[in-house]
Amino acid sequence: MPTRLSNYFLRTLREDPSDAEVTSHRLLVRAGYIRRQAPGIFAWLPLGLRVKAKVEKIIREEMTAAGAYEVHFPALLPREPYELTGRWNEYGDGLFRLQDRKGSDMLLAPTHEEVFTLLVKDLYSSYKDLPLSIYQIQDKYRDEARSRGGLLRGREFTMKDAYSFDYTDAGLDASYQAQRDAYERIFTRFGLEYAIVQADAGAMGGSKSEEFLHPTMVGEDTFVRSAGGYTANVEAFRTIAPPATDWTALPAAAVFDTPDTPTIQTLVDKANAEQPRPDGREWTAADTLKNVVLALIQPDGTREIIAIGVPGDRDVDLKRVEVAFGPAEVEAANEGDFAKKPGLVKGYIGPWSAAGAVLGEKSTTGIRFFVDPRVVAGTEWITGANEAGRHAFGLVAGRDFSVDSIVEASDVRAGDPAPDGSGPVELIRGMEIGHVFQLGRKYAEILGLKVLDENGKLVTVTMGSYGIGVTRILAVIAELNNDAKGLIWPEAVAPFDVHVIATGRDEIVFETSELVVTALEASNREVLYDDRRKVSPGVKFGDAELIGVPWIVIVGRGAADGIVELWNRSTGEREQVTVADVAAHFA
Amino acid sequence: MPTRLSNYFLRTLREDPSDAEVTSHRLLVRAGYIRRQAPGIFAWLPLGLRVKAKVEKIIREEMTAAGAYEVHFPALLPREPYELTGRWNEYGDGLFRLQDRKGSDMLLAPTHEEVFTLLVKDLYSSYKDLPLSIYQIQDKYRDEARSRGGLLRGREFTMKDAYSFDYTDAGLDASYQAQRDAYERIFTRFGLEYAIVQADAGAMGGSKSEEFLHPTMVGEDTFVRSAGGYTANVEAFRTIAPPATDWTALPAAAVFDTPDTPTIQTLVDKANAEQPRPDGREWTAADTLKNVVLALIQPDGTREIIAIGVPGDRDVDLKRVEVAFGPAEVEAANEGDFAKKPGLVKGYIGPWSAAGAVLGEKSTTGIRFFVDPRVVAGTEWITGANEAGRHAFGLVAGRDFSVDSIVEASDVRAGDPAPDGSGPVELIRGMEIGHVFQLGRKYAEILGLKVLDENGKLVTVTMGSYGIGVTRILAVIAELNNDAKGLIWPEAVAPFDVHVIATGRDEIVFETSELVVTALEASNREVLYDDRRKVSPGVKFGDAELIGVPWIVIVGRGAADGIVELWNRSTGEREQVTVADVAAHFA
Repeated sequence: MPTRLSNYFLRTLREDPSDAEVTSHRLLVRAGYIRRQAPGIFAWLPLGLRVKAKVEKIIREEMTAAGAYEVHFPALLPREPYELTGRWNEYGDGLFRLQDRKGSDMLLAPTHEEVFTLLVKDLYSSYKDLPLSIYQIQDKYRDEARSRGGLLRGREFTMKDAYSFDYTDAGLDASYQAQRDAYERIFTRFGLEYAIVQADAGAMGGSKSEEFLHPTMVGEDTFVRSAGGYTANVEAFRTIAPPATDWTALPAAAVFDTPDTPTIQTLVDKANAEQPRPDGREWTAADTLKNVVLALIQPDGTREIIAIGVPGDRDVDLKRVEVAFGPAEVEAANEGDFAKKPGLVKGYIGPWSAAGAVLGEKSTTGIRFFVDPRVVAGTEWITGANEAGRHAFGLVAGRDFSVDSIVEASDVRAGDPAPDGSGPVELIRGMEIGHVFQLGRKYAEILGLKVLDENGKLVTVTMGSYGIGVTRILAVIAELNNDAKGLIWPEAVAPFDVHVIATGRDEIVFETSELVVTALEASNREVLYDDRRKVSPGVKFGDAELIGVPWIVIVGRGAADGIVELWNRSTGEREQVTVADVAAHFA
Repeated sequence: MPTRLSNYFLRTLREDPSDAEVTSHRLLVRAGYIRRQAPGIFAWLPLGLRVKAKVEKIIREEMTAAGAYEVHFPALLPREPYELTGRWNEYGDGLFRLQDRKGSDMLLAPTHEEVFTLLVKDLYSSYKDLPLSIYQIQDKYRDEARSRGGLLRGREFTMKDAYSFDYTDAGLDASYQAQRDAYERIFTRFGLEYAIVQADAGAMGGSKSEEFLHPTMVGEDTFVRSAGGYTANVEAFRTIAPPATDWTALPAAAVFDTPDTPTIQTLVDKANAEQPRPDGREWTAADTLKNVVLALIQPDGTREIIAIGVPGDRDVDLKRVEVAFGPAEVEAANEGDFAKKPGLVKGYIGPWSAAGAVLGEKSTTGIRFFVDPRVVAGTEWITGANEAGRHAFGLVAGRDFSVDSIVEASDVRAGDPAPDGSGPVELIRGMEIGHVFQLGRKYAEILGLKVLDENGKLVTVTMGSYGIGVTRILAVIAELNNDAKGLIWPEAVAPFDVHVIATGRDEIVFETSELVVTALEASNREVLYDDRRKVSPGVKFGDAELIGVPWIVIVGRGAADGIVELWNRSTGEREQVTVADVAAHFA
C-alpha cells in the first residue's frame, strides 16, 4: 500500500524554525522529518523515522559483515561501574545523573564501555571465546553545554557503539581493522566523503584512536592534512621540536626596564636595540615567550593554577591543552586566581625555578610551569621578568630556567610541518562521523575482565570501542544533499523511492496515478503518493522539492494519452514516459 | 548466512538466576536472551533482540493495518507539559525525575499523552486533518516500588503507545474500535488468550477504558467474569446496591454496653439477644458496619484521614479505594493519625453527624465518612457507638446517620452478582497485556488542542490512548510456552525458524549439516547452526531445548546415508527425513 499524503501524518512548514543554525536542521524541521521537544532533544515524525531506519539498516548490514553481533543495553544504568572507572566524575556536567525512589544513584549512559565489559566478564572465561565484537544501536544522552545544529549535536541521540574483546594485541589490531574497514564501507554507501585522522585517545584511556571526519564548514572539529598524506585532528597534531643546542657560547641574559613596549613588536624592537644577538640574527615575535596562566579544573572540582609558555607568534589552543590535561577542564585564569598568586605579575610573567637564574627569587610562584615543544634546551627567549615594567632578554632554556613538562599547547597553523616529514599541512573543518579506539586493557583491568589463555594463565582482555553517530550521520547526509528548494536524499536512505504527484482535477489523472503507484509497488518501490484533491500543483511540487524523494512522477494533462513525467529531484531533469514504461525505469 | 554457535554471542547457564520469581524470567536469563543490569532493568542479548524485533514487527503490521503512523518521541522530556496536566506530581515516586546542567526539571517519560497532544496542536488546525492515529514503539520508564518478574514489570520497558485524535465523539468511538480490533488481531497472532474487561478510566482522566488481560497465575490483576459474559477488572466492578426502603416502621436504635464482644460473631449474637429485629430476621455479620480508618495521601503530600463503612463480612480493598480517590494514594491510618483524631475510638468507631442521632455529640470527629454502596437509606446496622465498650444496634442509614459519599470500597468475591444482571461472577488472575482508553477532551483542553470544525468554530479535540507492553508480551509468551527443559517459541516470534545440530566427529556430519543449512536458507528459513566441534550431543540437545527454536534438525549417524532427524520442540516428535527433503518440510 502506498503512503497517501491525503491522510499521512506530515505537515511541511513555510517558515524556517527560528532556532535553526544549520541547513540540515532547518530543512528537516520544515519538511516534517523532526520536531524539537527541548534543547537538543527531538521527536521523529514518520518521514524522519523512515530515513533513520534506512541509515540503521545499512550500519547493521556492515556490522554483520564485520562479524559483530547486535545486543541492546538500557539507557538508565547504575552508578557503580562508572564510579569504578572514574567516569561518573570525569564526565562532569555532561552526564545526566538521577536517583531512583530508593536513593540509588543512576545515570543516562553517554557510552557503554563499562557495562559491555561487565557483560563479557559475566559470560566469558576462556581465550577460546575470543575474539568477540558486539554492538548496539541505542539512544544515548549527553548534557551538552550548548546543543547546536539540530541533530548534529543533540543531548539525546542515536549511536551505533561496538566493542571488541581480544586477548592479544594482534587480535585487537585485527578487530580494530575489521571495524575500521566496516566504517569505510558504511560511509561510502552513504556517499559521505571522509578523512581518517589520528585522534587523541587520552580521554578514553586508550592507546590508539582514529576519527572519521567529514569535511564540512558546519563541522566542529579541525584537522590537518599534508600533501604527503599525513592527517590528524588538531588535538592529536604533534609539533616538530627543534634539536637541543649547546648554550656555552651564548651571552648571559639581562633584565631591562621596558616601559614603552605595549606590543610584542615594540618589545622585539627594543631587544634588537638593547641586546642584539651575537650571531646577528634579529629577534622576532617567535623568540618571545608568552606565559599564559590557566586554571585546570579536575572532575572533583579541584582548581589548579598553571602557566604555559608558548612562542609569542602563537596562541594557546585550549582544546589542545585539555587533551594534555584530561580529564581536567581548562579555562583562562580569572582575577581571583591571580589574587591568590601575587608572584604572577600580569604582563610580565616569566619562567622561574632555575638555580642561579637571572630572575632570582622574584620568580618563586609555587605553580607548575609548562612550555610548548619548541622551547628546547639552548633556545633563547625574550620574556617577562616577574616584575612590573621589566623583561628578560636572552633567557636560555635549560640554562636560565627549567620547566615541569612539555605540552602541546600552541595552536596549529596552515603551513606547519607535518610530524612525519610529509610537508606542510593545511587546516580543514570537519564533522566527526565515526571514531575508532584501541582502548587496550584499561577497562578490563579496572573491571576485572580476564580469561584463561592457552597455557591456563589468567590474562587481561584488550578492548576496542567503535562509535558512529546515527542521527548525526543522517543530519550530515541532509547537510550535504540539498538545494534552495529543499532536501535531495540519496537513494540509499531516501524515505521513499518515488513520489507520485497527481495534478489537476480530472478523474483520469487519479486513475492513472493509481496505475502508476500499483506498477511501482509491484516493482518493490516504496511510494509516497500525493493524492490530495484540493491542493494546487504548485504546492504539491513545492512539497515534493522540500521533502526530497529522489524521483518524482508527475501525473497531469498527459494522463489521457498515457504519458507521465519523470522528474529527477537531483538534476532537475524531466522526461516524458508512458505509464506502461514508468516502472521499468526503476527496475 | 546462518548464525553459527561456534562464535555466536550466546552462553546458556546451568543455574537459575537467584532473583527469578517467575518462569519466563528464569528461562530468558538461563537461555541467554536477557541479562539483568539493575532492578527491573535488563540488557538484551542477540537471541532476545531477535524475538523482540519479531514481536515489534507484528505490532507494527497491525498498527499500519489500523491506519496508524509511526513516530518516535524522546524518553527524556521537559517537566512543563506534565506539570500542566498535573501528572508531574500525580506520578509520585513512580516518576524518574532529574535536572539538566542548567537546573531545568526533566523526566523520563512513563507515557506520552502530553507531548503527542502538543505535537498535533503544533501541526494541525482543521477538522479536515482528522481523524489521526499515531503510535510509537519506545522505551519507557517507571520507578516501580517493587519491580518483579523479570520483564513482566520492569523499570525500563518497551511499549507500543498509540494516540488517536478526533473532533467528534463518534470519531473517537471509531478510532477506539480500530485500535481495539488491532489489539485482538495482535494477541491472536501471538497465540495469547485474553479477556477484554472494563477498567477504571479515572487515573487517565478518561471516560471509557478496557483492559486486555491474559489469564495467568503470575498476573498481578484480578478480573471478574459472569457466565452471562460480563467482565471487569475488580477495580472497575460495580456493586449492585439494594433499593432504599422506608424506615418509618423500624424501631429506634439503641446503644448497649458490649464488653464481651471480641469478634463480629459475638457482637451479632448479643444484638440478636438484646435487640431482636421486629421482622424476626436474625442479625448477621453482613448487618454490622465496619468503619475502617484510612489515610489519603495526595500527590502534593497532603494527608487526609477518612473513614469508610463496609459490611462486616467484607474487607476493604485498598486498590478499589485508590481508584475512587485517585490520584491520591491510600493506606491504613497509623497511630499518629489516630492520635490527631481523639474522636475515633478504636474498635468502637461509628458513623456520625445525623441530626438527632442516637450517637449524639460523641460522634463529632471532623473527618469525612464514606460507605459501601450496600449502605442505602433504610438499612439497619450494628456498629460502634464512638465510646469504648459500647455499640449501637439498629442504627438506620439515612435516619440515624448520613454519609459524605458512596465509594466502591469492599472487596469483590466469587459469587457476587454482576451489575448487568448476568449472574454471579468468578474471580480470575490475569496479566494486563493491553489497555485502551477513551481519554476524551481532558488533555486537549488543558493543553489547548483545538481545531476548526465544518462551521469554522473552534472545537476541542477528543483523544484516545492505547498501550501494549512489548517486553511484557514477550515475557507472557515465554511464560506460556515452555516445559521443564526450556522455552518453546511459537513460530511467529521464534528467534530462528530452525536449529540445526551437528552431532559426532565425522566430517560427513558437518558437510551434511552445511548442505541442510544452505537448503533451509534457500527456502528463506532463519537458521541457528550448532557447529561446535568439541561439545557433546547431550549438551547440544540440552541447549536446543533450553533455547526453544520450534524445529530442530539433528545431523548425526544417518548423515552418511543422507538421513537427518526432524525434531518438533513442542510435541517432542522426531521424524527421519532425507537431506533432499528437509527444506520441503518448511516450504
